[in-house]
Amino acid sequence: MSTTETLTADRILEATEEVLRRFGPSKATVVDVARALGVSHGSVYRHFRTKAALREAVTARWLGRTEELLSEITEGPAGSAEEKLRAWLSCLFEAKRHKAGDDPELFATYAVLITEASDVVDEHLVVLVSQVTRIVEEGVRGGEFEAADPVSVAQAVFDATARFHDPVFAPEWRRPSIDDEFRAVCELLLRGLRV
Amino acid sequence: MSTTETLTADRILEATEEVLRRFGPSKATVVDVARALGVSHGSVYRHFRTKAALREAVTARWLGRTEELLSEITEGPAGSAEEKLRAWLSCLFEAKRHKAGDDPELFATYAVLITEASDVVDEHLVVLVSQVTRIVEEGVRGGEFEAADPVSVAQAVFDATARFHDPVFAPEWRRPSIDDEFRAVCELLLRGLRV
Repeated sequence: MSTTETLTADRILEATEEVLRRFGPSKATVVDVARALGVSHGSVYRHFRTKAALREAVTARWLGRTEELLSEITEGPAGSAEEKLRAWLSCLFEAKRHKAGDDPELFATYAVLITEASDVVDEHLVVLVSQVTRIVEEGVRGGEFEAADPVSVAQAVFDATARFHDPVFAPEWRRPSIDDEFRAVCELLLRGLRV
Repeated sequence: MSTTETLTADRILEATEEVLRRFGPSKATVVDVARALGVSHGSVYRHFRTKAALREAVTARWLGRTEELLSEITEGPAGSAEEKLRAWLSCLFEAKRHKAGDDPELFATYAVLITEASDVVDEHLVVLVSQVTRIVEEGVRGGEFEAADPVSVAQAVFDATARFHDPVFAPEWRRPSIDDEFRAVCELLLRGLRV
């Protein structure tokens, strides 16, 4: 890659993800990232002051992709809150399953990275639960849902579907019965939300 | 321990658990178990033909203790199915949390053992879900719950509370907010079950 291209944080993060995928989280170094970009490691450090900061940023970017995908549903036109919540939960499950199945090396890499970056993960979870809260509130305003405390109910919906989005369960997502099990949990939760 | 006492399977399993707790699952051997009982390892092998069979049996016994505790609730006098289900879920969470917190070495040991004995674990899960099914059916018969397919609904209740009984979540069970989160999930599920 030509060094005359401007070295942006985004280009560094893209290269970092590729390096992590290739060498794995324990072996990938900042020097590998600099080499992949054809720049000095000093240039990388000007954007990310430590290796830990770089790894955190790449993790945040990875989790952020799912947040953006989901926010398209959250911000979508108000209609049935039930349909929106169902779509949101399916999209989350699909996104995680897709990441786990299509690029297992990268998924395994991020499984290690998220254990190092608990603040980044906590923020991700806050973003996701706040999206669910918005949908629940929309449903309450529209007279569809009943929820005395939408924040705690949104957290409950998120917690109750952990089996279908927490990466620790990734091996179970290949089981043939998982889709029916997912639907059964969603329908029970939606019944619990309806007025 | 005197070798004149009859060597029962139960005595062997008790000694095995103690040996596992002391040496950990990677180091504990059948010879250690025999030594703890003051018998030859041949005597142990007469009851459990392989080391794997012994480890499976001790895992089944450990999981069985929780099943028995819960079946007291399941078999209890019919009353409100809602109260029974709430008590059952609380008892499961408490039993798992108690095991994780009071004897972390033994819990860590079993966390390893259950990865080796997937059949034993699958049977345990079938027993637990069938207990939930019974309570759901009781609720349907009593006109309290609505469930077109009690087995799938019971599985959904069990899956939706995974965060509060699956050992992978044990580190989260010490968080101060966990009890409120547990209650919020239970109440949402019970709302979903009510007619």
